[in-house]
Amino acid sequence: MAGFTLERRSETPLARQIYMHIRKEILNGGLKEDSALVSTRALAGQMGVSRNTVSEAYDMLIAEGYILSSKGAASRVAKGVQIEGAAKAESQQSENKPKSYTADFKTGQPDLGAFPHKQWLNSVANAMKTLPTTELSYTGPQGMLSLRQEISAWMYRSHMLSIDPGDIFITAGATQALYLLAELLLAEQKKIIMEDPCHMGMLRVLQTKGALIEPVPADEHGIRTDRICGEGAGAVYVTPSHQFPLGGILPAERRASLIRQARQHGFYIIEDDYDSEYRYGGMSISPLYAMDPEKVIYVGTFSKILFPALRIGYILLPRPLQQQWRRLRTCADVQNPPLGQAALADFLHTRKMDRHIYNMKKLYAQRRSCLLETLKNTFGQSCTFFGDSAGLHIVAQFPGACFDEAFRKSAAAAGLKIMPLSLHCIRECSHADKLLLGYGHLEPGKIRSGVKLLHRHMVSAGVWPEK
Amino acid sequence: MAGFTLERRSETPLARQIYMHIRKEILNGGLKEDSALVSTRALAGQMGVSRNTVSEAYDMLIAEGYILSSKGAASRVAKGVQIEGAAKAESQQSENKPKSYTADFKTGQPDLGAFPHKQWLNSVANAMKTLPTTELSYTGPQGMLSLRQEISAWMYRSHMLSIDPGDIFITAGATQALYLLAELLLAEQKKIIMEDPCHMGMLRVLQTKGALIEPVPADEHGIRTDRICGEGAGAVYVTPSHQFPLGGILPAERRASLIRQARQHGFYIIEDDYDSEYRYGGMSISPLYAMDPEKVIYVGTFSKILFPALRIGYILLPRPLQQQWRRLRTCADVQNPPLGQAALADFLHTRKMDRHIYNMKKLYAQRRSCLLETLKNTFGQSCTFFGDSAGLHIVAQFPGACFDEAFRKSAAAAGLKIMPLSLHCIRECSHADKLLLGYGHLEPGKIRSGVKLLHRHMVSAGVWPEK
Repeated sequence: MAGFTLERRSETPLARQIYMHIRKEILNGGLKEDSALVSTRALAGQMGVSRNTVSEAYDMLIAEGYILSSKGAASRVAKGVQIEGAAKAESQQSENKPKSYTADFKTGQPDLGAFPHKQWLNSVANAMKTLPTTELSYTGPQGMLSLRQEISAWMYRSHMLSIDPGDIFITAGATQALYLLAELLLAEQKKIIMEDPCHMGMLRVLQTKGALIEPVPADEHGIRTDRICGEGAGAVYVTPSHQFPLGGILPAERRASLIRQARQHGFYIIEDDYDSEYRYGGMSISPLYAMDPEKVIYVGTFSKILFPALRIGYILLPRPLQQQWRRLRTCADVQNPPLGQAALADFLHTRKMDRHIYNMKKLYAQRRSCLLETLKNTFGQSCTFFGDSAGLHIVAQFPGACFDEAFRKSAAAAGLKIMPLSLHCIRECSHADKLLLGYGHLEPGKIRSGVKLLHRHMVSAGVWPEK
Repeated sequence: MAGFTLERRSETPLARQIYMHIRKEILNGGLKEDSALVSTRALAGQMGVSRNTVSEAYDMLIAEGYILSSKGAASRVAKGVQIEGAAKAESQQSENKPKSYTADFKTGQPDLGAFPHKQWLNSVANAMKTLPTTELSYTGPQGMLSLRQEISAWMYRSHMLSIDPGDIFITAGATQALYLLAELLLAEQKKIIMEDPCHMGMLRVLQTKGALIEPVPADEHGIRTDRICGEGAGAVYVTPSHQFPLGGILPAERRASLIRQARQHGFYIIEDDYDSEYRYGGMSISPLYAMDPEKVIYVGTFSKILFPALRIGYILLPRPLQQQWRRLRTCADVQNPPLGQAALADFLHTRKMDRHIYNMKKLYAQRRSCLLETLKNTFGQSCTFFGDSAGLHIVAQFPGACFDEAFRKSAAAAGLKIMPLSLHCIRECSHADKLLLGYGHLEPGKIRSGVKLLHRHMVSAGVWPEK
């Protein structure tokens, strides 16, 4: 044991230290195979530890097969154990600190500063107090019944939709819903129809699952259902309540057409309702799901209402798919953890959710007005808007301008996070003069200074006239 | 509006009720396309509500495209909106209450009654108090840094393993880890080598991902590495610390051979360390990962130590795979929620974890002794055991007996949940006389009465002599 000293003040037991050292020597060839080890008594004397300590280390080495013991004789190094050292690859890790921007118009970002922390923590505390021990074990892939009942009641309050809690399946957010639905629906037909432009994150999810994407243009009303070729499609993915990113509400006639096509060609419609709670000019839009619960899979999420890291969403699933979904979810990650579900059930049950949405709607409506007004004042009447009646973002059109990846990059370098609509296009190319502006998380002051910075940058980048 | 009455005491606003009714009439053809609606004034009078209420309903119908307004003229039903009613499929839902057994020897079940609720809740409360608002937003797919640091420190305390927190990736449990690893590793090579017998749940996960399973026999020491044909394999899935279900500790020589083969054929080794914390005869086993962090992916879980529904596990990932993993996890479900992670970090930091494991080890050791003793007393010396030095289950061999699916079913009917080892076999057929007995969750009284019931049932089923 040359060159090896025990660290007596270490948290690691002495026996473990001896074991580690000998093991290392065996693996790197310092102790050759079949060579005899010194006796436990001798090593104990040598190291100044009790014989028990050394025996414990040897026992471990025997249990793991590094050395072989034989009665009365010395223990020997086992054969075939030595391996060459592994070269460790360079660390790729980047504990990536998100870049911070002077003005950040990112989309899909609720105002977390206005999140009712105290009330949420109350719900978590209530949930903890009342969570039965049985909920700590596996409880099945569908999600907590009490939460599904609360979601059902809430859907009725908010959308006048009567949903059987048995048709609700809790997910780890909308992304997981889409990820697993793709696996479920694309088993036979790989084609999936998407709106163009669309949400790039969701497009990436579907592409990861090997989907063959067929883009269909969306206009200011939503997907152009007359341009859909439904034959051979496994699914259509749409955002009918507030088309992402253009913001259209899909008209009833297109809704009916979509459902007729789904029935005719046997595909399912995935309806992503990512932010319909925030509608500023009246009641919230009725889901497409209500028109045909056998053909539409409704995907809901609480990420935008509460906070993105919550990771709780839900789907309303046609019954013929439910058994398959259960199997798949069990394989994917078994189920959602119970605490968040129970807290959310409490948050819904006590109507904290309704109050929170009411408050946020007021807040977001103010910010939306501020953004629209500031844009008008800064860019004049030629600047027009899409999708401003709902949600946490708008699309602004700047006639004559042309925004592309180069513009996005130069803006980012100037401290301005802004997304050209063209970067959300799959094939369409009629949106070069539009920008996507998320405002939910921005206070009025930030909005005004952000628009100023945008104007300055557009002028300096040559996409907008100086005066 | 014949046959329609407003529910004035309903929570649903009157405007919403009117909207819902008209929409329904349009969809089912009661209101034909292009037909004129009565004016808002007339309908308001008819229903006894304010004109504003009716206007709100009409505005909604216009926004969603069910009716078309034109200045000065009556609103008309839009064209092409009517669809035939969807027949609703029979509910498949079964809010499946788990069957309860008189004696339940299921495996992988910790004792949730002994779970230190109070201390865990303290950790949750601490986490809630200190969680920064930034953690409510998306924080990336790798998991909370503070938790990864605590896991790193804990791996050092428990396994003398020095892990860079940058190589740790938090997962939603071990199942998700395997599910996504399969997607990652099987992109090119579909073949995956598994121990036979193995964990059927994990086999199902891999099969779901389209893996071509190549079973390799495991004996009482673990996988027979001399029987592996590594060519064309994408991965090998092993449980070297405590082979599931046989319980062997993979000897050093086989470990070295496995790593040599992985290097030669370019496949990765997935090491599932599902319960090595509970080892009764000494230190815990060193992970295979320690021998080659470039070829071994270590999968750890807290389901067995804390509780199954926690859904937090972690993997130690070779660096060339890290970027791909980040991308994939982002698509699959983005990230773990923050509260559970922060609570677990606190539980580790305050050493509640170490104390909990210490306590549970004592408890499980007693139960294990009770089970072994009761089996010996009941079935005599011919009954032998495998894998009893660690974990929460043992394998018992009853020479001459033959256990199969029929036996499992008849036992279940008699109130006895028991798993024949043969049902964990892919191809192997040398385990017909063995049963799997999980005991972690069973108090001594339950163990004794369970063994009695097992004996009675084995005799009545004719697989064991009466005296």
